[in-house]
Amino acid sequence: MPDLDFHAPRLFVDAPLREGERIALERDQSNYLGNVLRLSAGGNILVFNGRDGEWRAAIEGRKRPDGLSIIAQTRKQDRLPDIAYVFAPLKHARLDYVVQKAVEMGACRLQPVLTRHTQVSRVNSERMRANAIEAAEQCGILSLAEVAEPVALDRFLDRRDSARLLVFCDEATDVAAPMPALQAAEAAGGIDVLIGPEGGFAEEERALLLRQPKTLRLSLGPRILRADTAGVAALALVQAALGDWRG
Amino acid sequence: MPDLDFHAPRLFVDAPLREGERIALERDQSNYLGNVLRLSAGGNILVFNGRDGEWRAAIEGRKRPDGLSIIAQTRKQDRLPDIAYVFAPLKHARLDYVVQKAVEMGACRLQPVLTRHTQVSRVNSERMRANAIEAAEQCGILSLAEVAEPVALDRFLDRRDSARLLVFCDEATDVAAPMPALQAAEAAGGIDVLIGPEGGFAEEERALLLRQPKTLRLSLGPRILRADTAGVAALALVQAALGDWRG
Repeated sequence: MPDLDFHAPRLFVDAPLREGERIALERDQSNYLGNVLRLSAGGNILVFNGRDGEWRAAIEGRKRPDGLSIIAQTRKQDRLPDIAYVFAPLKHARLDYVVQKAVEMGACRLQPVLTRHTQVSRVNSERMRANAIEAAEQCGILSLAEVAEPVALDRFLDRRDSARLLVFCDEATDVAAPMPALQAAEAAGGIDVLIGPEGGFAEEERALLLRQPKTLRLSLGPRILRADTAGVAALALVQAALGDWRG
Repeated sequence: MPDLDFHAPRLFVDAPLREGERIALERDQSNYLGNVLRLSAGGNILVFNGRDGEWRAAIEGRKRPDGLSIIAQTRKQDRLPDIAYVFAPLKHARLDYVVQKAVEMGACRLQPVLTRHTQVSRVNSERMRANAIEAAEQCGILSLAEVAEPVALDRFLDRRDSARLLVFCDEATDVAAPMPALQAAEAAGGIDVLIGPEGGFAEEERALLLRQPKTLRLSLGPRILRADTAGVAALALVQAALGDWRG
């Protein structure tokens, strides 16, 4: 990580990035740079668009920042491992938090699923996307996690690519060692990490999950974990065993 | 975990627990049971004191809950692995969160350490203890994590038992695989898991850490993790490699 500049402000822009390109800023971006970060014309920030890597850019604009001039590339585009975070959504602030943490932990896709004991029946996808962008900006991430619309668990299972490994955490599993199981798993086709609702899976949901090919049913220790804690813990184990925490 | 009752309210009481014992409730406990949980005389809860396991208890009291009558033991006292969470404290709500997560993840001791880039210079230890108790109550944990007073990093290192493994996360480490290193580590003497400030360790602090015997310097992947995320992730890896997530 020595190449990462931890301190420069980073901004996601939805435009092609090339040397000399000029990009117009949207009002909320202008406000963020000018009023929140107190930057003005000439100030430098880092920009990314999820495709072209990271670039240094200079702020332009007389009264307030209204554009960016793209200067030079600082980092090439990289790729996240194919790890999707599939989760029973929570309410409001807890959902914001879960989205941010999943992005920090390197999930490339966020898929809310609705189960019997899920706390909410719909989610604000735009808010999820905004949280995903902000987490990527703040944590030096060059890819933008895809935010999918919520679906019922059975429909998710029916439509998903069954060549993917399905890792799910189940409080009903006897405590067993997760790492050897993960380290031995076949994950070349991608991984779905499923975190269920805090009320647990219903019996028929558990049965449906266990009927999927390539499932790995994990216990996350002998204590109860809240959903947001379980998410970070499960992703840490998956990244360390199968993802890009392996150096 | 099938023996855990996920739904019964749990209360920490600082009194011996034996069949037939009667325990007086403190005002805030009475308020919690009566007004928040809306329980009254005859209602059952689970109680623990960190020493005698978990017991079923009946609420007593005419106008409001004022005591508990201890009925029968539901779980024997267990022990947490000897994993201390040593961390640069954060502000207020973020500190509450870090304490709760560390307890959920099974830390037996919480030790704030002050470093060059730590955000705060003091912590509210009573508030930390209250958060530790609440997390134990909500997550079915029978032991009470010890909350230590903050100390400067150099004093912590000077006073600690050097037979303990010191795991610290360092953004300056090149990305390497944490799991093989952890799985090979010698941890019989206990483990200190150190999460530094978000600004990173100062050079002299890093040098001091690397001079400690039995250190394991971990990278938590190629992305920047916020301190609370890093804490859960590090504890997940330590518990899975060396702790009680091994079945």
